[in-house]
Parts: sequence; structure tokens; C-alpha cells
Amino acid sequence: MRIRVVNPNTTAAMTETIRRCALAVVGPDTVLDAATSVTGPASIESHYDEAMSVPGLLAAIRQGEADGVDGYVIACFGDPGLDAARELAAGPVIGIAEAAMQTASHLGRGFSVVTTLGRTVGRAEDLAERYGMQRFCRGIHACELPVLSLETDPDARKIVTEACREAVAKDASDAVVLGCAGMAELCAHIRDEIGVPVIDGVAAATLTVQSLLTLGLRKSGRGEFATPPPKTYTGLLESFGS
Amino acid sequence: MRIRVVNPNTTAAMTETIRRCALAVVGPDTVLDAATSVTGPASIESHYDEAMSVPGLLAAIRQGEADGVDGYVIACFGDPGLDAARELAAGPVIGIAEAAMQTASHLGRGFSVVTTLGRTVGRAEDLAERYGMQRFCRGIHACELPVLSLETDPDARKIVTEACREAVAKDASDAVVLGCAGMAELCAHIRDEIGVPVIDGVAAATLTVQSLLTLGLRKSGRGEFATPPPKTYTGLLESFGS
Amino acid sequence: MRIRVVNPNTTAAMTETIRRCALAVVGPDTVLDAATSVTGPASIESHYDEAMSVPGLLAAIRQGEADGVDGYVIACFGDPGLDAARELAAGPVIGIAEAAMQTASHLGRGFSVVTTLGRTVGRAEDLAERYGMQRFCRGIHACELPVLSLETDPDARKIVTEACREAVAKDASDAVVLGCAGMAELCAHIRDEIGVPVIDGVAAATLTVQSLLTLGLRKSGRGEFATPPPKTYTGLLESFGS
Amino acid sequence: MRIRVVNPNTTAAMTETIRRCALAVVGPDTVLDAATSVTGPASIESHYDEAMSVPGLLAAIRQGEADGVDGYVIACFGDPGLDAARELAAGPVIGIAEAAMQTASHLGRGFSVVTTLGRTVGRAEDLAERYGMQRFCRGIHACELPVLSLETDPDARKIVTEACREAVAKDASDAVVLGCAGMAELCAHIRDEIGVPVIDGVAAATLTVQSLLTLGLRKSGRGEFATPPPKTYTGLLESFGS
Amino acid sequence: MRIRVVNPNTTAAMTETIRRCALAVVGPDTVLDAATSVTGPASIESHYDEAMSVPGLLAAIRQGEADGVDGYVIACFGDPGLDAARELAAGPVIGIAEAAMQTASHLGRGFSVVTTLGRTVGRAEDLAERYGMQRFCRGIHACELPVLSLETDPDARKIVTEACREAVAKDASDAVVLGCAGMAELCAHIRDEIGVPVIDGVAAATLTVQSLLTLGLRKSGRGEFATPPPKTYTGLLESFGS
Amino acid sequence: MRIRVVNPNTTAAMTETIRRCALAVVGPDTVLDAATSVTGPASIESHYDEAMSVPGLLAAIRQGEADGVDGYVIACFGDPGLDAARELAAGPVIGIAEAAMQTASHLGRGFSVVTTLGRTVGRAEDLAERYGMQRFCRGIHACELPVLSLETDPDARKIVTEACREAVAKDASDAVVLGCAGMAELCAHIRDEIGVPVIDGVAAATLTVQSLLTLGLRKSGRGEFATPPPKTYTGLLESFGS
Repeated sequence: MRIRVVNPNTTAAMTETIRRCALAVVGPDTVLDAATSVTGPASIESHYDEAMSVPGLLAAIRQGEADGVDGYVIACFGDPGLDAARELAAGPVIGIAEAAMQTASHLGRGFSVVTTLGRTVGRAEDLAERYGMQRFCRGIHACELPVLSLETDPDARKIVTEACREAVAKDASDAVVLGCAGMAELCAHIRDEIGVPVIDGVAAATLTVQSLLTLGLRKSGRGEFATPPPKTYTGLLESFGS
Repeated sequence: MRIRVVNPNTTAAMTETIRRCALAVVGPDTVLDAATSVTGPASIESHYDEAMSVPGLLAAIRQGEADGVDGYVIACFGDPGLDAARELAAGPVIGIAEAAMQTASHLGRGFSVVTTLGRTVGRAEDLAERYGMQRFCRGIHACELPVLSLETDPDARKIVTEACREAVAKDASDAVVLGCAGMAELCAHIRDEIGVPVIDGVAAATLTVQSLLTLGLRKSGRGEFATPPPKTYTGLLESFGS
Repeated sequence: MRIRVVNPNTTAAMTETIRRCALAVVGPDTVLDAATSVTGPASIESHYDEAMSVPGLLAAIRQGEADGVDGYVIACFGDPGLDAARELAAGPVIGIAEAAMQTASHLGRGFSVVTTLGRTVGRAEDLAERYGMQRFCRGIHACELPVLSLETDPDARKIVTEACREAVAKDASDAVVLGCAGMAELCAHIRDEIGVPVIDGVAAATLTVQSLLTLGLRKSGRGEFATPPPKTYTGLLESFGS
Repeated sequence: MRIRVVNPNTTAAMTETIRRCALAVVGPDTVLDAATSVTGPASIESHYDEAMSVPGLLAAIRQGEADGVDGYVIACFGDPGLDAARELAAGPVIGIAEAAMQTASHLGRGFSVVTTLGRTVGRAEDLAERYGMQRFCRGIHACELPVLSLETDPDARKIVTEACREAVAKDASDAVVLGCAGMAELCAHIRDEIGVPVIDGVAAATLTVQSLLTLGLRKSGRGEFATPPPKTYTGLLESFGS
Repeated sequence: MRIRVVNPNTTAAMTETIRRCALAVVGPDTVLDAATSVTGPASIESHYDEAMSVPGLLAAIRQGEADGVDGYVIACFGDPGLDAARELAAGPVIGIAEAAMQTASHLGRGFSVVTTLGRTVGRAEDLAERYGMQRFCRGIHACELPVLSLETDPDARKIVTEACREAVAKDASDAVVLGCAGMAELCAHIRDEIGVPVIDGVAAATLTVQSLLTLGLRKSGRGEFATPPPKTYTGLLESFGS
Repeated sequence: MRIRVVNPNTTAAMTETIRRCALAVVGPDTVLDAATSVTGPASIESHYDEAMSVPGLLAAIRQGEADGVDGYVIACFGDPGLDAARELAAGPVIGIAEAAMQTASHLGRGFSVVTTLGRTVGRAEDLAERYGMQRFCRGIHACELPVLSLETDPDARKIVTEACREAVAKDASDAVVLGCAGMAELCAHIRDEIGVPVIDGVAAATLTVQSLLTLGLRKSGRGEFATPPPKTYTGLLESFGS
């Protein structure tokens, strides 16, 4: 069983963090690796970045299919390119927002999301709706730390922790969903500090993929998520055609 | 890691089927057993049966806590007693409808549910709403087989398979959710016959519990799902008080 | 026309309060009595208590059918066992949350609910959704008084009244729904104090049952709410089978 | 306790039918009369008719207040002028669509509405949403009989009955709501013919008003439904100003 | 291309303001005029006023059809009589709330509405739902200025501007919708003061009508919005019959 | 006032069709041109194509900003890259699905969408929800013609026309929305054939942009849709960074 976690930004250090968090939860029969996108933004902090990360993500999925990968995690909380990736891959593709929110829905009546920049809150709202999780999502809060500062700012851990504490108090929620793959390693620390369950989507999505593979579940192969029809592509992206 | 699958009806043969399906999917570090409810209906086919199965289910949860069980599956598609069980248990409790629907939501735009008697369709509708899965649930269909006939009627496999085939065609759906724990062993057969993914909630819920335990996630211990306040109980159910 | 108000907890003093409030509103041709559950919790303050109150409630419905009762009120704001009770009874069964919220919907754009313990707020949210009353329900507030303290705490009246006043101010609502059968006798006092309509579900539900009986309306007798199929029950609850 | 049923069209024969249906259900202490609108359309079969029936309806409410009436029924399934009437009246005002749908919600999982002309279906959809009854309303069906033909067409009873039978079959619903005040006297006949509960909104609304009066409930007197601010009116409607 | 903006209240000075705002945005081929209702309230500040403004509005539509008008704007934020007007008119009829909210939906994730009296907030909520704009409408706020004071109160501009500023801050919204036709001329001033887009529904609706006419779009002429069936009207409103 | 219609696929012939349809509706003061994407798929018929069309679309927006364009239309019914384009552009950006659905909402109670391949139906469902148009959208139907066949298949006009006719009959809808920019020139023909209004999103969106520009409305410049933060991009897409 081969699972690949794809970091849709191009920052390899973040991929390594993500890989560690995913590896920590898989079973002994699961082969897990992580891939960094070969083209696109260094971090994803706008609709523009997210859209522009998708070609690199899809290239990684295509590479994964060639490599015999069985299932994928998209390790960015905007779940960029999820629908397109599902068309390309034969096996399951899970976004970390999708998995984190569904996981949190089992832990009580409602959860709070804590994300990086305020401008990404809208995307998280859209995803909560898309996955049917609006009824569990009690609030989405920004700590206004840029994504890459999560790894470099010495106060990052404290800032995120305090944002989580305030979110739970304000929303009267039962759990916190971390709204950025770059927060994955803060998960246990925050849980210990604030005393409520904290969900890292990277680990949650990895286990969701592993479960789907164990259950032998993959898309039916027809309809909306069938392989895309062959198509001529031109210009810079010519190689993405078929 | 100890997981217990609780069959909330009192039919031990069905518990054994359920146990096999759950056991087939857990990892090597998971200890899994199954419990049959010690009191209540032989099968659950009405709101009455479902309500009356809850004391037996809750007794099983209480016993599980005494036995050091870490997480539970409620193996009936009505997810009876889920909220109350979550109050009693320190660890995760997952219903098979909850897990099956969420699992199916990853496989395409929408799924069909195929259940036993038509009178149980309403309960499945309620659960789809509760879990935020209404947007993925394209139809709920009854094959009008009583629960216990699933194990005894020689035509059961064929009847359920045909109901699944018709459901997918009518709903233009991407997957089928089996609407009864007693259908668990039909899962692979139906998938092979109709060529779309088929989800058995018993296996799906077992893996959901295993994932939550792997992630170290449990309810926060306060609020709506905290341990119930001590209370005097009288009459037949006196022993359920504290 | 015989109406029975069933108190699903086992506290007879509370049944008597409830009976008085119901009796005060029925017409001269209505015979009204009240029954205390013969088994279960002394008060209902958790999902666990609520689930465990249902066998006693259903026994009371069964007894009512034997006694020739025409319609029933379930006098607990969680409306426990409503679906199952509707299967058992030939005539109407109305929950007090159901009736109170619908009654309040006629009095303005929105109402507030004031309940006992904070942990029961979630159940009231679920019921508002189930009855289509979410659009009218502007807030659900706890006064953190245990149910049985409503009858014993000398400050209960004041505490509940102030909680109602604050709820109306915060929610800018047009009416208050009392979220516990044990608050029934406070209704007129609170209305006089805070100057907005206050709805006691016990009285509201009793009149709803009386109206349904006057209109000659009862379930159709087929489908989801038909009499449950006969079933073997074993163990402590054996006598609930058929 | 004085209740007035207002027929917002100007056809006195229909008022008399309505009055009989309302009178049949009130208690011995209720004084019930019926009023025909003094100006407007002979029947209400379009948004235009409905809008133009409102001045006559509001004049009737104003007259009722002068006459000491305690509560009102608006006897047209479009519930015309409901919000404005609530501003004018000190006591409760209930529309027959509002009351019929809420009453039907107690009888099962879903109801069908059978109305007159197809062009009125949209208004019934709007009202189902407004009252939170969309989740119970499984279909709205027209029998394409004009309102006044209900009293004159010898086949009316048969046409409406068959439309109800087909609606229940198509929607798999538990009850039928009659979508026109002019159908009130067909209620018992249709129920006997098709074997499911049939709700006439005139009777249902009359009992809802009676219940609200018995409970002593009236709007709070402030906010959205307070008495309208005094205003100069000019032209044909000058007398409606204050 | 002839467009008529109808002011459904009877205050001619307000019609003139409205006309100027509409005229400022139409193209060179559009002939635009404005009509004051010939009967009804001097301003619309309650459900009662709104309902009573409809006959005058519909008379203006009828007059417009006789005059060869191609499309209409209803220049009151309650969009009174919209459905009925659509039945009467062969061409498009657009309400200013409808147009303003849809226009605002293009400018970001959400808008705030600032209206006159608090008692009109409920109507704006209803309209947001009707037009599918609830998901964009983040709050509706009253500045508690009566409609006619907008033109006479020397502090009106300042009061409305401050209410807009507070609304945007409280709702974290991207734009402001002015909730009264009488605020039309404040639009540019407020935008300049608070630095976010401000939408005047009169101008927005005028352009929506112009666009529909340019596209050659008009209702299909059958079904719900077909010309109302001929009908006898009696009493004061006799002339409204046909 | 300069408006640019961007065809996000790379087929120049289709751009020319689109340009003609847009040009036919703008006012005399509007300068309108059309741009073909410089890189990506020849047509958009999958989530993959749609995602891969976004870089080319965003390059066109960036070019437009350099050229002094005031507003943009995205001329593909999937509205690809809309959020990202809004971040880049100072002025309005409107998708053709967005504009077509809102325009159709003014013409009656509900519309049908007729699109190309069945696999694109899901995207149209997502967009209807996003824009608040689900309540108006009564059905989405595929005619199973590939996008580029619209211009080359001699039966295309007939096939699309019949699909529209069937959609209206099945959905009982009041209007048809054409679900592909390539259908723009069929609009008048289909309307004449089936007798209901038919909406081409290209023309509708062009007028929506023109209206927003006339109203002086543009995003506020802060928050979710502010200019994306500067970011290093690497690999093939390096030039998209800043």
C-alpha cells in the first residue's frame, strides 16, 4: 500500500515536516513518501497562489500514477485541485481540510478552525460547505502569521496556541482544526496547552487514504470523475495535454 | 489499542458476521472484539426497536469502559444511542451510518443508500442530515427484506444486489452505502456485480475508530458530551442510575 | 376525548405541576390526566438520561393505549422517544419542544429558548432543526439550574426570569420558549416581569393534541409510523417485545 | 373569546362554507363569526389578486379591532397580508396555509399539498419555506380547478379527490393539505376515500387561534409587529391612513 | 427603450431624487422617467404601509403598459408587489433590493445592509432569502431614521454614513447596500467616507432592467407569471378588476 | 470604459464567436475586445481542463491590467479562476455562469441549465450553490456534445435546441441558461424555437461588467480579494511569481 503526501507548494522544508507527521500515524504495511511540487508558489496564501499551485500538484499526481502510488494526500488546507486530482488518479485523493473537518465532526457538536492569514478564511468557509461540515464548523479564525513564518518565527507556537484558545472560548466549540499543513507539528503541544482535541489534517487525511485503500474503495471510473478526455494543450502548459 | 464493535440487537449470529467484517480491516496492533447486546430486540426495524435497543447498547458501552476498551463501533445503521454512548465512553464511539456516509463522500459527487424495510428510510434521512451528508446522499432505497432474512433468505444476496443496481441507475450516483450491518458480507460481491464502489459501514466505522485512536483524539471531557451527572434511577432500569 | 400527559422522568411532584398546567387550558369536553414514568431517571439532564427515559415513556404509551387514551403529550423538552411513541399510539403524540416552538413561531420573527443546564442546549438545537423551527429560533440559553432545583431552589424563579430577560435582549427576539417542563408554572410570572410572550410547552402541546383530536386527525397507519413489526425481545427488557 | 374568520375574497357564499367549517371545531366558550372582504377580487388566483385582496382584508382586521375581536383567521391559502394584519391586530392572526402545514407536520414525515390552479403552486412553495415547513412538504400539486368552480362544478369533489390520491402516491407522503379555503368541506370525504389524513386549513387555523387565546399569548407589542407608525395616505386609499 | 422607475410611496420629492439617480446611469438610447404612486402611504415603514402601497404601484404598472413602457424599477427596498407587477407587465420588473443585493454579491464575500427603521429589518431578511442572497448578506442594520427624514434631517447624511461604517466593521463585510430608495443620493459620499463600495439599488435596478431589455429577455408568458385571469372586483377597488 | 472578454481555452475561433455576442450588447461608450488564452486546453471539459486553464486566464488578466482594461468577463461556464482573477484585477471580473444564472432569476421561479458533456453537470451544481442560485436552478442537463463540436457538428443547433425543449418540459422551468460559452450564438434561435427566454452568459456577463463600471463599483481593495501578497514562484510557472 503506497501513499504519497503531496505538498502543493514548493518549499521542501515544509514537505519534510508534513512527511514526518504523516509517517507517524500510518500502519506497518503502508509505504509512505512525500513530494514537493516542482513548480508554483513557495507558499499558498491567496486564491491566486492556490490556483497557480494546481499544475504542480497535478504533475505530482501524474508522476505518482507512473510510480504506482495507490493513494494521495493534498497537504494544503485549501485542498487545491482536489476534483482534478481525483480525475487523474485511479485511487483515492484526500484533502487535509476535508479529512480534518470530518474527523473533528466525530468529537462533539462543533469545531473551530484556526488558520494563518485572514484572507484565507473565505476559502475555508467554502470548503466547510462543500464537505457538508458547515453545521459543525462554529468559527474560522486567523492568527495572521504567514505560512512560512510558522517554521521560522520563534513566537509561532505561542501565537497559534493562543489563537486556538481564544477560538474555543469564543465559539464554545469542542475541538480545534488546524487550518494549515505547516501547523501539523504543533498539534500535540496545543492540545496539551488548551485541553481540547486538536486535529492536524495531514495525519487525518493520511489515515483516511489508508482506510479507503484497506476497504478497497476507489472511484467507479465513470461519470464526473472519470479520466479526463484527451485534449490538445498549447503554450507553456503544452506538456499537460494528452 | 482495543476496539469493540457493539451489535445493538440481541442476535449473536449477526454479531459474528459483523465481527468478521471488522476484523478483516484492522491493523496488526489493534485488538478487536464484538459484543452482542444483552437485552432488547432481536433486530431493529422500527423507531420503537431502535429506542429499545439503547439500554442494551449503553450497558455494553459501560461494560467496555470497565474492560478497558479504547473505542467503539455501534453496528446498526440507525446509529442508536450515539450521543448517549459518547457521554459514557472516554474514547471515540462511531456509528456505522456516520462512517459509511462520510467514507462514501470521498468517492464522487453522491451516493445511494440501500436499506432493508421501507419504514427505516426516514431514519436514514435524519442521519444524513445530522452528519452533513444530505448534499452527498442522492437517494435512500429499501429492498423490503427484513433484517434477519439477510442471513436466512437464499435470495437475499440477489435481492440486495439488484436493489443496489437500480439505486445507482436511478440516482446517477457514484457509490452505494449498505444500509444495514447485516449486509456487511455482501459488500465485495455487490461491488463486483454492479461495478461501483460499495461501502459497508461496519468496516468503515471500525477504521474510523482506529484512526481516531491513532491520532490520539478523544472528546474534550467537558460540555455536552461530558460524563452524565449522577442520577437516581428507579424501577426496572434502576441499575442504570449512579 | 382523553388526553394523557406523560412525564418521562420518575419524579411524581413534577408530574403534578405539569398536570396542573395542562389541566388549566383544556376544554370542558377533554378528560386529562398525567402519568409518571415507572422506570428511569429522576430528571433528564443528559443524552444518557434522555435515552434511558424512553422505555418508561413507551411503557406509559402502551398503558395509555390499553386505557383508551386518545392522545398524548411527552412532557420533557427533549421530546424523548417521540418517533417510537408515534408508532405505538393510534392517536397523536406531541412533544413539548415541538409544540412550544411552533406556537412561538406565530408570535413574531423569532424566539429565544431558555433551558436548564448548558449541556442540554445541543439537544434543543437538534429539535429546532427537526421541526423546521431553526429559522425562528434566535438563541438557546442555559440558566444552569438543575431540573429538580426548579421546584426546590428558592431563587429559581428569579434566576430563570433573569435568564429570559437577558436572552430576549441578546437575541432581539419576540418571545421566550421555556426549555423544561419543570418551568411550566413560571410562565405567567416571567411574562409579567419581562413584558414579552412566554410559552410553556406543556400547555401548548396539550392544546395541540386537543386540536388534532378535534380535527379527527391521526397518522395514516401505514409506512414509517405504522405499528412496529412484532419482535422477540430478550433480557431485562423482554416484556417490551411482542 | 371572539374569533373572526376573514375571507379575503368578496364571494359571500364561500365565506359561509368557511364559517361552517370553522364553527364545527371551536369550543363552547368561543364566539366565532366570519367576514367577507368588502373590496377586492371575487376569488384569489394570481399574485395580482392576492396583493389586491390585502386592503379589504386589512379593513376587516381594523373593523374586527373596533368590534372587540380577539383573534383572526385569514381564510385563503396564500395567507395574504399576514404580516400587515399582525401589525394591526392586538391578538393573534393565523393564516390557513401556516396552520395547515404545521398541523400536517405532526402526522408523519411529509405531506402533499393539493391546490387549485397550477399558477398558485409557487406561492405555496414560498409559504412552506417561510414557515419552516419545506422539510415536511413533499410536493405541491394543482388540480387545475378555478376556485369558484369548487362550489359549482359537479365533478369538483371527484377531481380534487383524485388529485389527492395521486399526490400521496407520487410523493409517498403521510397526509394531504388542502390548498384552498374553498376545499374545506371536502376534507372528510377525501380522507374517507383515500385513507390518509387530510387537513383543512380553515379548521386548523381556527383551533390555532383558539389555542393561542387560551394560552394568553399575543405579540409583545414592540419591534417589527408593533402598531404601524401613523402615516398620511392619499388618493383612493386615503382612508387607510391615520 | 423606455424604462420607468416607480416610487411606490406618494412623496413626489422622493421620486425626483430617485429619478436623478436612475437617469445618471442609463445609456444614451434609454428613455427613462419616474412615476409617483397615485394612492397610498407617504412613506413605507411597516408591513402595513408596504401592503397598502401595492395597489398604487400596480396602477402605475398598468399605466406604464398603456404608455408603452418596456421595463420597470420598483423603487422601495421592500420590493412591494414584485410578483404581481411581473404578472401585469410584459417586460422586466426589478426591485431595488433584488438588484442591489445581486450587484453586491459580485464585489466580495459578503455585504451589509443599512436601512432606516429597525422594524423593517425583518423584511430585508425575507428578501435576502428570496433572492438567494442570504449567503452574501452578513448583517442588516437600522439607523433609526424615518424615511422622510432622509431628505429633511440635516444630520441624515452623517447618521447613515456612521451606520454604514459600523456595519462594515461589525460584519467584516466587503460592501454596503443602502436599504432605502431615499438614500440613493448618499451613495458616493458614503463610499468616499468609508472606503468600501456602496450600492444604491435604484441605479443598480435601472441598469438591470436596461440589461434585460438589451438582451431581449422577458418572461415566457405562461405559467405562474402569465397575465392574471380576468376577475370581478367589487367595492373601493372595483376598477382594479377586469 | 474598456471591457475584455477572456476565453480561457486556446481555440481562437471560439473567441471570435464570443466576441461577436458580447459586442452586440454593449453600449456606444464601451470599448470591448476579446482575448484567447495563450496556454492551456483547446476546450474545457473536465475538472482537469478547468484547473489547467487558470494560469492562461490569469496571464490574460495580468495583461489586461497592463493594458488598462477596466473589467473582465470569464467566458467559460465553469467560471474558472474567478476568485484569483478578482484578486489580480482592480475592476470587476464576472463569470458567465454567475451572470447567466442571476439574470435568469429575474424571469420567473426557476430555470434549467443545458450544458455540453454530462461530466460537467457537477461543476454547474457547485456554481449554482456558490452564487445562491440553487433555489432558482431546477435542473442541469447535458446534451453530450463536446464543446468544439458546437461549432463543427451540423446537427449541433438541433441537438441543443431539443435538449433545451426537454429540459423546460421536465423541470417546468421558466427559462433556459445555456451552459457553455460556445452556445452563445444559438441563443436567439432556441428562444424562437421553444418559446421561453434563453440566456447566453457571455452577453449577460458583459452587461453585468458594464453595469458595475457605470455604477463605479469595484472591490474595496482590502481583505480576501486584495492583491495577492508577493511570492516566489519556481519551475515552469516561475514567471507567475512576483
